[in-house]
Amino acid sequence: QKTADSFFHPRNSLKKPPNSAEEEDSAMENIVTEKKAEESHRQDSADLLIFILLLTLTILTIWLFKHRRFRFLHETGLAMIYGLLVGVVLRYGIHMPRDGTSVMLNCHVNASPATVLVNVSGKFYEYTLKRVLSSSGNKVDDVSDNENEMLRKVTFDPEVFFNILLPPIIFHAGYSLKRRHFFRNMGSILAYAFLGTVVSCFIIGLLMYGTVTLMKHVGQLHGEFFFTDCLFFGAIVSATDPVTVLAIFHELQVEPDLYALLFGESVLNDAVAVVLSSSIVAYQPTGDNSHTFEGMALLKSFGMFLGIFSGSFALGVATGIVTFTKLRDFQLLETALFFLMSWSTFLLAEACGFTGVVAVLFCGITQAHYTYNNLSRESQDRTKQLFELLNFLAENFIFSYMGLTLFTFRNHVFNPMFIVGAFLAVFIGRAANIYPLSFLLNLGRRHKIRSNFQHMMMFAGLRGAMTFALAIRDTATYARQMMFSTTLLIVFFTVWICGGGTTQMLSCQRIRVGVDSDQDNSVSVIASVKCNTKHESAWLFRIWYNFDHNYLKPILTHSGPPLTATLPPCCGPLARILTSPQAFENEGQLKDDDSDLILTDDINLAYGDITVNTDGSGVHTSSGAGFASGMSSEDLDRELTCGDNEVVMRGTCLVFPMDDSEPTLKDPHMRF
Amino acid sequence: QKTADSFFHPRNSLKKPPNSAEEEDSAMENIVTEKKAEESHRQDSADLLIFILLLTLTILTIWLFKHRRFRFLHETGLAMIYGLLVGVVLRYGIHMPRDGTSVMLNCHVNASPATVLVNVSGKFYEYTLKRVLSSSGNKVDDVSDNENEMLRKVTFDPEVFFNILLPPIIFHAGYSLKRRHFFRNMGSILAYAFLGTVVSCFIIGLLMYGTVTLMKHVGQLHGEFFFTDCLFFGAIVSATDPVTVLAIFHELQVEPDLYALLFGESVLNDAVAVVLSSSIVAYQPTGDNSHTFEGMALLKSFGMFLGIFSGSFALGVATGIVTFTKLRDFQLLETALFFLMSWSTFLLAEACGFTGVVAVLFCGITQAHYTYNNLSRESQDRTKQLFELLNFLAENFIFSYMGLTLFTFRNHVFNPMFIVGAFLAVFIGRAANIYPLSFLLNLGRRHKIRSNFQHMMMFAGLRGAMTFALAIRDTATYARQMMFSTTLLIVFFTVWICGGGTTQMLSCQRIRVGVDSDQDNSVSVIASVKCNTKHESAWLFRIWYNFDHNYLKPILTHSGPPLTATLPPCCGPLARILTSPQAFENEGQLKDDDSDLILTDDINLAYGDITVNTDGSGVHTSSGAGFASGMSSEDLDRELTCGDNEVVMRGTCLVFPMDDSEPTLKDPHMRF
Repeated sequence: QKTADSFFHPRNSLKKPPNSAEEEDSAMENIVTEKKAEESHRQDSADLLIFILLLTLTILTIWLFKHRRFRFLHETGLAMIYGLLVGVVLRYGIHMPRDGTSVMLNCHVNASPATVLVNVSGKFYEYTLKRVLSSSGNKVDDVSDNENEMLRKVTFDPEVFFNILLPPIIFHAGYSLKRRHFFRNMGSILAYAFLGTVVSCFIIGLLMYGTVTLMKHVGQLHGEFFFTDCLFFGAIVSATDPVTVLAIFHELQVEPDLYALLFGESVLNDAVAVVLSSSIVAYQPTGDNSHTFEGMALLKSFGMFLGIFSGSFALGVATGIVTFTKLRDFQLLETALFFLMSWSTFLLAEACGFTGVVAVLFCGITQAHYTYNNLSRESQDRTKQLFELLNFLAENFIFSYMGLTLFTFRNHVFNPMFIVGAFLAVFIGRAANIYPLSFLLNLGRRHKIRSNFQHMMMFAGLRGAMTFALAIRDTATYARQMMFSTTLLIVFFTVWICGGGTTQMLSCQRIRVGVDSDQDNSVSVIASVKCNTKHESAWLFRIWYNFDHNYLKPILTHSGPPLTATLPPCCGPLARILTSPQAFENEGQLKDDDSDLILTDDINLAYGDITVNTDGSGVHTSSGAGFASGMSSEDLDRELTCGDNEVVMRGTCLVFPMDDSEPTLKDPHMRF
Repeated sequence: QKTADSFFHPRNSLKKPPNSAEEEDSAMENIVTEKKAEESHRQDSADLLIFILLLTLTILTIWLFKHRRFRFLHETGLAMIYGLLVGVVLRYGIHMPRDGTSVMLNCHVNASPATVLVNVSGKFYEYTLKRVLSSSGNKVDDVSDNENEMLRKVTFDPEVFFNILLPPIIFHAGYSLKRRHFFRNMGSILAYAFLGTVVSCFIIGLLMYGTVTLMKHVGQLHGEFFFTDCLFFGAIVSATDPVTVLAIFHELQVEPDLYALLFGESVLNDAVAVVLSSSIVAYQPTGDNSHTFEGMALLKSFGMFLGIFSGSFALGVATGIVTFTKLRDFQLLETALFFLMSWSTFLLAEACGFTGVVAVLFCGITQAHYTYNNLSRESQDRTKQLFELLNFLAENFIFSYMGLTLFTFRNHVFNPMFIVGAFLAVFIGRAANIYPLSFLLNLGRRHKIRSNFQHMMMFAGLRGAMTFALAIRDTATYARQMMFSTTLLIVFFTVWICGGGTTQMLSCQRIRVGVDSDQDNSVSVIASVKCNTKHESAWLFRIWYNFDHNYLKPILTHSGPPLTATLPPCCGPLARILTSPQAFENEGQLKDDDSDLILTDDINLAYGDITVNTDGSGVHTSSGAGFASGMSSEDLDRELTCGDNEVVMRGTCLVFPMDDSEPTLKDPHMRF
């Protein structure tokens, strides 16, 4: 009996007509193949349905939690738990016999081709390479015997994470970075992200090398584990993802400087970790067996790091800038173009051999800085909401898949010694990142990073989606399998324990919550004007800021002062051509809220770390530089404070912007 | 030289470590495989980039066209042109040598397994079945020799269209159906969509059978072509897609009744065509060679049609209803849940063996009718915008792929006789759908469907995405290949010629443009009150409407009268439990705009075709039925007219809702 839908799910063109009588006998065979393909399609739908129902369940439970103000478990932790449960059911509950469709062919080919044409009784079937199973025959038997068909089905290609799920998450992070407090703490964030991640990577790598050597002596190691593997492990677990912590920060309105430090660091160190890990792999001399330290290879890796990073950075910034739009009247076109440009940044970087994830991050940051201002108000909302939704779905999917993987992944290697060593190393690595750097940064900062901030940052070193994606990408060797299993445990532990204990930690560290951005600012004004600031260290930022504000912003966006005011008079005609009509309009209505936002934003650029002697009065007078140099720091600060309400209202919601109707806690010493 | 990104793109886990010295020699081999996989990944990115740049180009050109008010070419037609150009370049411009990676294996296996393990010098590679190439050896040589690697790369799996691109388009159509004029013309739309499509399918099928028989006599037919193939062709080209026409209608504000008729028909006949074609394939007795007419099989097909249709319908409606939400405070969760539920409807239907596309359509309609009212205002906007964007991207992607396919598809069979026959048959089939049905409908309608409306509907029988997706789904046989090539030409012709000539046709048929919905209504009020209406034919709708308004709406949404008012007094406690607090609130503020909208909407349900003697006063008095029976038709109409402004402002934008700043043409006889 042949059902109607068998037509609808033939894999590609499996169906063959009974062309002539001699092929009559193969018709039945075709129907069988077709039936199989249909069955497989139906199974695929059912598998995907499992994940969607998981997500639905997660959403409903989150809603319940939010409704009941239950704050100990974040949605990502919840998604992991549901994933775990489904994993257990799939692993132990369902016993599906493996269908005997896979046939062993013993062929004597030298290379492993990407495509194989199999001649089955006169008919040709094209097969594509899926994976290498194993080099030893007995293992193959293992796999084909014990492999549960269902488990195999719910296992995604790891590339899916890198090419489909991570980009929206990373882009969203970059797109949300347009925050005053981020720019205020730019210097510190860059230090934590770049220096800190490298330090953490090497410390964890060295500690793990110690652990592995010890294991070898004790006889616990059942495979190869090289120093580069240790460094690789260090790189992947250095990518922090405090999404849980930040969601709670956002809800409780924790001090914005702390928020900015954590968020900025976590966004940028993802990029650093990706490039770092790829450089380490490039250093690893796969061809020969040496695995010893080589100066030349190290240098090459370093060059590669710089090359990939700056290439991806340049690409992201370039496409971010290119996405200048004049389609303001057609919101749908605008949103679609914005979406496509962001995606093409990723693809372009991948096609060029750079890292798409990093390119997309800087594309997001650039677009938030320039393109966002060109979008119509409606498109600003649309794009924000779109990426927020994509981010939400992708994140929860990854976390529930993580839970699932603990039981469905078939090559787990849990080694207690390695796990204990890894947890210790991760802890020490994080400490070696935060405390010494904070000390060094405090030497130069006007607002010191207080010790309770440092403890909180230490505590908030959660590992999440990026670590998982990097770990699952390659699980071919013994070392990588052990790393993957350990990484899973680290993610579980940090998300549940550190994520769940955030509120306790906040109250324990006496970090102020319920801070109005406005109020906070006036406090810091008083604190900051008394500090002696270092003008000399600011020259780079000052130059960049002036260039950005006077030339880039007017050319790339409709806001900012018109070029006619900032360029020297001799360039008058050129300036008039490059300046958009809107910019002139904005000049007319001096307190246009859009340009106000941007400028307020920019003045803050280097506010915390360094004081910029900038033409902050650009909006008000359009007379350009010169006037502001006479402004005192207090004036500048007061101006910032004035613009604050506006900024807070229009600022991008970062992590989980829900209209929580809960009253904000104004008591600095919270009671739970 | 090994670059860093080679780590980042190993296909699954191709990478193997040099575990021991004896495997040393295979290490180099692995690197080669890895390099290949990396190269392939990079190529994939580049290919996808081509499509994205195509879409970007399309968007920019559309913007230019909109800006210049150039209305002869719609974005879909434009996307096709760009697709064609890229197709020409790929076909004739780039000559990429086929890499010799595919190896011919001569194995003697009886069946064609889904998975093949190939033992390559001691290592096992898993291969998955991709497609059946051909049954004759010489053809395989053809393929492997001439096949351009680039062309093969840009060819998508046809299932992508059905499982990824069509669902958002169809869902969007269903979700946009919440329009007063649609419900006013419900009866006619159902008649056109169901009866009309079936008639058109059989007429085209019969005409094509005549053509094919003629071709056989003349000796033009070079393969088998059965009657069921002809019917199948009739089914796939009966799915109309007047997106181009509707966009122009929307822009010019053509009379809303005509708009509703065309839009409603095109949405529903897609569903009918999908199920019809699958039933025809089920009828086709693949196992034996007979292909003769069988009463039993016909009956079975008919049963299958009903089964699949009602199954998909029920599933769609059920999930649409189940998506009742109370998450109003958390817009992100609400939107995410909405999105996931819609998607899971599709997957669930596919997993059950129904047609996902049909299920998603009715899910969309149901959600627009019930769930939409439960969403918070912000989520209503978000979901609309999200599906609008997805629809826009998917549609333009399909159309540019269509253009590309004309040159890159490798098995085109262009037969002039078949093509001429098909164009004629499509024309006659459309005519046989519209004119006789309009005549019959006019016997029962209050507002007659005027002859210029009929001509316009005839003219607007464009073929688009659905026809293409159905045709490309199976291109294995000679008959199917000929159908596919012909279908492409039909789509090109109708989209360019009929789509481009819409404005001319409108002015030629003297169809009013620039019609304000409001104004139009007052005209029809005068016209309609004079008509004698048929109460007797309305009983089914009246019952359904009463049931929906009094019981379903209050239970499923927060709006409508509270159940306590509509249920008999004995059910008081039950009613209080089922009614949401919001409904009581709504009762308080009698003219709540939300409930007003819904009621206005519902009263219109059978307005054009039949007059419903309904309790239209439910909102105002909450006294339930009884009062309204005394209302005259005029009162009802006036009430409708009052609610109109509200509805028009809040109504769902259907096809391409852009803020076109162009002045609306009030002149009924347009000048172009």
